[in-house]
Formats: sequence, structure tokens, C-alpha cells
Amino acid sequence: MFDVIIIGGGPAGIAAALYSARAKLKTLVLEKAYIGGQMATTTEVENYPGFESVGGSEMAEKMMNQARKFGALVHREEVVEMVLDTPVKKVVTSKNTYEAHTAILCMGASPRELGLPKEKELIGSGISYCATCDGAFFKEATVAVVGGGDTAAEDVLYLARFCNRIYLIHRRDTLRATKIIADLVLSHPKVVPVWDSVVEEIIGELNVEGVRVRNVKTGESKTFEVNGVFVAIGNVPNTELVQGKVLLAQGGYIRTDEAMRVWDPSQNILKGVFAAGDVREKILRQVVTAVSDGAAAAYSAEKYITETNL
Amino acid sequence: MFDVIIIGGGPAGIAAALYSARAKLKTLVLEKAYIGGQMATTTEVENYPGFESVGGSEMAEKMMNQARKFGALVHREEVVEMVLDTPVKKVVTSKNTYEAHTAILCMGASPRELGLPKEKELIGSGISYCATCDGAFFKEATVAVVGGGDTAAEDVLYLARFCNRIYLIHRRDTLRATKIIADLVLSHPKVVPVWDSVVEEIIGELNVEGVRVRNVKTGESKTFEVNGVFVAIGNVPNTELVQGKVLLAQGGYIRTDEAMRVWDPSQNILKGVFAAGDVREKILRQVVTAVSDGAAAAYSAEKYITETNL
Repeated sequence: MFDVIIIGGGPAGIAAALYSARAKLKTLVLEKAYIGGQMATTTEVENYPGFESVGGSEMAEKMMNQARKFGALVHREEVVEMVLDTPVKKVVTSKNTYEAHTAILCMGASPRELGLPKEKELIGSGISYCATCDGAFFKEATVAVVGGGDTAAEDVLYLARFCNRIYLIHRRDTLRATKIIADLVLSHPKVVPVWDSVVEEIIGELNVEGVRVRNVKTGESKTFEVNGVFVAIGNVPNTELVQGKVLLAQGGYIRTDEAMRVWDPSQNILKGVFAAGDVREKILRQVVTAVSDGAAAAYSAEKYITETNL
Repeated sequence: MFDVIIIGGGPAGIAAALYSARAKLKTLVLEKAYIGGQMATTTEVENYPGFESVGGSEMAEKMMNQARKFGALVHREEVVEMVLDTPVKKVVTSKNTYEAHTAILCMGASPRELGLPKEKELIGSGISYCATCDGAFFKEATVAVVGGGDTAAEDVLYLARFCNRIYLIHRRDTLRATKIIADLVLSHPKVVPVWDSVVEEIIGELNVEGVRVRNVKTGESKTFEVNGVFVAIGNVPNTELVQGKVLLAQGGYIRTDEAMRVWDPSQNILKGVFAAGDVREKILRQVVTAVSDGAAAAYSAEKYITETNL
């Protein structure tokens, strides 16, 4: 029997493990792929306070060793089922069944990809899914933003602080974004909208050098030279396993209160269950906000365990 | 004219500066004492994800250099007045008057001290104001907790995970803490309540070795050998300068929403003003949550500046 089981080993899960293990709680982290989550796929992080520049996987290792130092266990196993509405939480993986007094859900989110050849290889070499994370690496560059919603429009405005020219590639002929933001985008001197268009090829070998774009109305193709492509066509929280078990907000993110507590779908507090990081409904998804969530969730789990006298 | 003025150079303020400067906003941090705030007075931090062990002032320097790298300015000046309810925010220091589109309030909070000789010198050598921060350094130790409210009671229960014996020194003969927590404290085998008593002397030269305690009813004094003293008699947010200007919650903390926006006392959103870190109403005051607040506040400031087309 564990005190705390953490599902997901990204920054939120690791920070939760660090705080929980340091509070002398018996702590297990379950991670199906690699420690660090989305952070681990990031070539360079320069906006996590304390590190001027650090590789995402190096950072993940540092954080995980720190949590391990306090006794946190990490198992590489895929969770296939969870029982969360009983006093003892049950987490079933492909190999084992674990029980714990509390569960912290840190499954993260995944950006929706274009699904093009070379897209994955060029992540960190011109392909990005996060303007706030990577915009500052594109000073005086020409970039493309793909998408037409609020995130795409906000990314364009954010990138306009750094870049010389931004092609906004959208499959329709109007933006879905809020009018005020859409107006700012379309009146911005650095922005060139490319309407009714989809990216059909990413050009470049070691770095992104351009995109070939097809007009879905005329069928014509056109090439744009760009140094970077910011893909902003959506972000999908990894909540398949908790569908119907916890209350989800718009977009499928887990709704929490400030203490990271979650509700069941009938809006009753799900005792002993917490969520942290990108998987939860929140305003800013960054390493720095994920670790804060994780610490808060572990703090709440510790208080719950103490006050329930478990 | 600055884009963002940050009042306070603790972890929240530094992280806000990092995010704001990295977003190419003209950023000024005003700090009256020393960079790092309360963190700077901490001998060892071992629960900030990414650093197994780091001195508080070393950490502050690392973070501030990182923010400076992106162009943030830091001035050592004491703020004496602020005008926050106008489109252009005005911040008056003892030396200058600054103007900015946005202001981020990061003035922090200060623990209430016992006010005894040697108390300040022995911070980090047995005197602590934060059980979550420092409890793990007191494995198998005997400690005293001073106070009788929820924080003192929670600190006792948290410390009971590490320590062998805990004297709970309180000036009254009952706890003010919530009944459920008070009951757990008083029935805990490791806890020895010392009622009607105040600490009148801290004993020890290089480290805390004991406390002399006076019974306020009988006038008798008694000495307890302890390795640590956790002072939990209150925490005071540094909000004198914004009294009557922003909406304060219980205890004088600044109330914010998740985007770190603040309200005026009539509960209208105070446009372009944000708060972050220990100064705001929140559940867990730690370096890791402060930097997250700071990043979120800077993100919100950036969005406000962009959407208001400033």
C-alpha cells in the first residue's frame, strides 16, 4: 500500500513525488514512456528559473534523481485502469495492480500534430508547438503559424515581438479567434495571412527551411521560406483513462480547485484524488507552472492523509 | 515608460521579470533590500525541482542573472507610493518616479518573529518559520513549535513525520486550530503540549540547543533541550503600500484570480495590475509556487499589453 501514487512522470509528477517523498510519504510514480514528459523532448529550456539553459531530458533526470533521493519509486509501466472513488485507490498497469491512499493525476497533454513527414525529427530544429516556450529562439526570423483559433492568434502576436515576418496559415478564410485578437493579428504589419491553406510539406533537412502550402479551394501549391513552424491546431489532454470518473472542463482538461482537488462527474469532491500540470484546466502550461501544481497537489495529499489519520 | 514594473525581487518578482523580459517587454524590478527576498535568507533549499541542494542567495543570483540576460533592469530602491487605478501606473521610490503600462505586486510576506535575542542569527541553524521548507532537515530530532493556530498544529503534524519529540509551546491552554487537527495533535504520541507558556530565551551559540520557557500563569521558568524551534505565530503580507488600493483577503493577503489579476476594493478588476508570490492569498507558500505565480503574472501582463494594443 502506497501513500501517494502519481500517474505520469513529467515535471508535475516529478515535483509531486519530490514533495510527497520529502514529507516521508510512500510514493510511487508510474510513467509509460520517458521521465520528463513533453519537457524531455525539448532541446533547450531557458525560461525555467534557476537554469540559464538546460536540455529537457537533462532537467528531467536532475528532478527525478532529487525525488528518488527522498525515496520516491519510479516504475516504467503503462496504467490501463484506475479506481478512484473508493477510500483505497487502485491503479492497474499492464504488469501490476497498486493500491494507495491518494492518487495524483499528472498525465499531461499532447499537442495535435500536422502529421507530416519530418515533423517529429525537426522538433526543436524549427518545429514548435509552444510559442511562449520557443518564440525567443526566433529573433528576426521568418516563421509560419498554423491554425486559426485563439492560441494561433495569440502565438502570432507573441511571435511578432521577435520575428520579422509571420505567415499565418489557416485552412479557412476567417479566424476562429476572438474578434479583438483577430483584428490585432490581421492589422499587424508583420503578419501575412495565407487563407484556405494547409501545409503539405515541411522543407529542410537539419533545420526547417520552408513549407509547401496547398490552397484547398484552388488546389494550387506554393512554397514559403521560413525558419520555423509553430503548430497551433490544438492540444489534447491525456484523459482517456479518467473519462466518466473525474469532472472534465472544456477541451477535456481536468478541472481542479487551487488545492488541486478534483470532482467526480456529479461534482462531488473525489476525496484523496488530485491533478497537476498540463492535464488540468489552467491558463499557462509551462514547466514552471507544472512543478508548482505538483508541489501543491502533494501538499494537499499530505494534508488529506494526515487529517484522515491514514 | 516601462511595459512592466515589478515591485519586489523575491522568487515571484524574478520569475515575472524573466518571463516579461523574455517576451521583449521593457521590464524593471524594484527591490528595497536584497534580491531573493525570504529565499535569500535561507541557508539550504533542497525542494526546488532541479536543485538537489542550493543556497538561497546563490539561487536568487542565478535567477536574477537569467532575467537580466533577457534585458530586465533591477534597481535597488524602496517604493514609497503607487498609483494603480490609472491606465499608466506610477511607482514612486525614495529616489525616482517610474511609469509603466502594468505593475506586478510581489512584495512577499514576513513571518512574525518571537523578537528574542539570537533569533535572527540562528535562522537556518535551528530557527525556522516554515515546517514544509525545513522539517526534513530535522530527522529524529527534538523540536519546539511555538503557536496555537492552524499553521502551528499543521506544522506539528508535519514535523511528527520526522522528529522524535515535539514540544508545542502555546501561550493559552487550548489550541485555536480547527478541532479535527487539534485532536490529532493532542493525541499524537510524539507531541508534548506546553500550555500557558512563552519562550523567553533561545539557548545555543552556533546552533539551537534549547529554549527557556516561562509559564505566564505561575511565572515559573523551565528549560527544554531542543534541536530546532519552528515559529508559527503568524505571517504578515507586505501590503502596507496597497491598503485601500487593491482588494485584500483575510490576513491582509492580496486576492487574485488564476491569471494573477487583482481587484480594487470595490471589486472591479484593476486593469494592468497583477500580484504574485507570498503576498497573495494562496494555499502553499514555497519558492516553487512563487516562481509559477510570477510566470503567470508576466504572461497575463503580456496579454493585457498586446490586447490593449499598448
